[in-house]
Amino acid sequence: MLDKRESDTQNVVAIMAEVGRKARAAARPLALASAERKYAALIGMAEAVRQNMKSIIEANAIDIANGEAAGLSPAMMDRLRLDESRIRGIEDGIRAIAELKDPVGEIIAEWDRPNGLHIERVRTPLGVIGVIYESRPNVTADAGALCLKAGNAVILRGGSDSAHSSAAIHACLKQGLKSAGLPEDAIQLVPTTDRAAVGEMLKGLSGNVDVIVPRGGRSLVERVQNEARVPVFAHLEGICHLYVDKSAKLDMTIDIALNAKMRRTGICGATESLLIDRAVASTHLVPILQKLEAAGCEIRGTDEVMALYEAAIPAEEQDWATEYLDAIISVKLVDGVSEAIDHIENWSSHHTEAIVAEDPAAVERFFNEIDSAILLHNASTQFADGGEFGMGAEIGIATGRMHARGPVGVEQLTSFKYRVRGNGQVRPS
Amino acid sequence: MLDKRESDTQNVVAIMAEVGRKARAAARPLALASAERKYAALIGMAEAVRQNMKSIIEANAIDIANGEAAGLSPAMMDRLRLDESRIRGIEDGIRAIAELKDPVGEIIAEWDRPNGLHIERVRTPLGVIGVIYESRPNVTADAGALCLKAGNAVILRGGSDSAHSSAAIHACLKQGLKSAGLPEDAIQLVPTTDRAAVGEMLKGLSGNVDVIVPRGGRSLVERVQNEARVPVFAHLEGICHLYVDKSAKLDMTIDIALNAKMRRTGICGATESLLIDRAVASTHLVPILQKLEAAGCEIRGTDEVMALYEAAIPAEEQDWATEYLDAIISVKLVDGVSEAIDHIENWSSHHTEAIVAEDPAAVERFFNEIDSAILLHNASTQFADGGEFGMGAEIGIATGRMHARGPVGVEQLTSFKYRVRGNGQVRPS
Repeated sequence: MLDKRESDTQNVVAIMAEVGRKARAAARPLALASAERKYAALIGMAEAVRQNMKSIIEANAIDIANGEAAGLSPAMMDRLRLDESRIRGIEDGIRAIAELKDPVGEIIAEWDRPNGLHIERVRTPLGVIGVIYESRPNVTADAGALCLKAGNAVILRGGSDSAHSSAAIHACLKQGLKSAGLPEDAIQLVPTTDRAAVGEMLKGLSGNVDVIVPRGGRSLVERVQNEARVPVFAHLEGICHLYVDKSAKLDMTIDIALNAKMRRTGICGATESLLIDRAVASTHLVPILQKLEAAGCEIRGTDEVMALYEAAIPAEEQDWATEYLDAIISVKLVDGVSEAIDHIENWSSHHTEAIVAEDPAAVERFFNEIDSAILLHNASTQFADGGEFGMGAEIGIATGRMHARGPVGVEQLTSFKYRVRGNGQVRPS
Repeated sequence: MLDKRESDTQNVVAIMAEVGRKARAAARPLALASAERKYAALIGMAEAVRQNMKSIIEANAIDIANGEAAGLSPAMMDRLRLDESRIRGIEDGIRAIAELKDPVGEIIAEWDRPNGLHIERVRTPLGVIGVIYESRPNVTADAGALCLKAGNAVILRGGSDSAHSSAAIHACLKQGLKSAGLPEDAIQLVPTTDRAAVGEMLKGLSGNVDVIVPRGGRSLVERVQNEARVPVFAHLEGICHLYVDKSAKLDMTIDIALNAKMRRTGICGATESLLIDRAVASTHLVPILQKLEAAGCEIRGTDEVMALYEAAIPAEEQDWATEYLDAIISVKLVDGVSEAIDHIENWSSHHTEAIVAEDPAAVERFFNEIDSAILLHNASTQFADGGEFGMGAEIGIATGRMHARGPVGVEQLTSFKYRVRGNGQVRPS
């Protein structure tokens, strides 16, 4: 006889295998579904969220009560909580995704060959996406809708603290699928809160998961990146840099530095390290740091920085490798764009970096020599966002170099195939 | 004390770790190298191959003698053998890659945002490519040159039977790199024939391999796909289909069928299964099969096919799953494009499929509903080739849906990053 744990594990394996098979079976009708049908499903989902607001709030109340009993942190409780305004936000988010251009079938490139063959590269869905996220119930709707728009089946595995809220939202998504005649298995919510389910997803469910997208903090992403046997779209952290060149305009620099660091400190595109060209340290450093400090930012600097700005705290080596996600910035002087590039290539997480400069040569070197997903000139690092890029919505930001890089929107959730049109061509021997 | 095997294994691990570190170190200067410098290196390689023809032939003679002593098959011996003409072919191949457009820095897409930000998506190198191949010495030059053109460092692991030939060619590649002032470690040949080296590469050399490309037979690709902890560009097999619709012109069909199956039977784009619309079986089947048989092709058919064409051998279920790579074809009647699509989705390896038809509706269904890397209309499946697609050269054909699909040429060996140009934009709260 099996003891309980073994029997539970076997149970989870069987449940997840079934989830994988259902997702793969749903992927094909979904890939062939017309743009109109997917649009109708998404509008149906948005309507269902509106109509079921009361039951979503009731389900959320159970999660909130459980969360209070479990002593979740105030930040976690805030992320968990749904009210009318947030649920309207979820509805609006689904509607915005519905209005995006359908990527499937789009001709990305086409060309003719001398022998008369006409070649088209055409977007196709990726297949089955696995999304693993923490207790943010809204991700259930965002991720489900975005994957559907790109013609993919999706397996959603949300945090157990938000299980009731996610299930209530998921019921609305299924209602939308059903109303449009699409398979309800196109968007599945993992029906167990057992953590072993995550391990099964990371193994790929016998080839039934094509890519995994983790949404959450560093420890979740780290586990996914280490254990996944399928491709992962993710970034581990956003150690973003702002470099102030000697050719930078001071007023612009102050505005950008303040926004890049302080607009929202907890997002991956927030600047964590400020590099200032030694040539303008005497004029630029103090006004920039004064503004940051006045806005509530802690300044951690090198000896040189502290000599110019007494209120700074000493920066340790570890600071250059730290994503604070808080009102803290590390500051260093560098010898122009060369040393800025060296520092960034050495310490960056290759997410997003910005340069403030008027000298085009400095900008071009920064753009060419830094291998990060997003590089900005005279703009805030906080623009690192699919919405700000005009992609409409994103499922996350990727720092890998395979397939998707930067904001992952509907286009990045597709693959492609070639269609070749001839009139009897055979290949010469 | 370690016994010999343990000590050897530790040795291989250390050697491969060093290879990985050197590759990563070379990747950055290579990524920043100008198009002119890479061009000069490639021309230098081609010149070196020409100048060292004698020493390449001498090295090859050692492999040939060892191969004969080891009793390699005639096919393997043929692949192994180099003569003046084949070495000139290698030289010409490198020159052709030199002449390709440099992909690095190319702007793939660009657009403006309402706030004035200008966004560019720009090609960048992937990083470090690992190529694992069997005893075809020419792959050393092809793969090395192609990876270099895309700005990637490459680790080449060739078959041990071609070790001397590959080393002689590799020496020429290094000479070209050196003459252009590029790091010689940009193209490394694994300095041990120990099979454990392959296992180390598949583990990714501590993050120092970004993608693996296997070039060889099914057993090599299968091992790589099963064991690799990094992304793989590959196809396991090419079970390619040719579907003859009732609207097909008979003459065109005969030409295409003959070419698709018999032009070269051993390549991945060769047709393995022929599906004929039942509606034209009485008119089309016999003339097509007669031509194939006259060209030396064995016909394996269903009962229906055998009833129409007596010389056919019975096809077993296994035939639909078999990549013959030989002068054999499996033949079946289907009820129009619907059943053709069902058969292909069930049995295909999703490499390449062709339809012969004059009816545009049949073609569109075939193109839309089959999820293979390459779909052709009124053309031979043997066009499944990077050169035929106008990509100049390819490192292989991929059937996965991530990053690269279809022929893998220089563009597919790149990633991208975003360059965003502003004039002081900050993100609203």
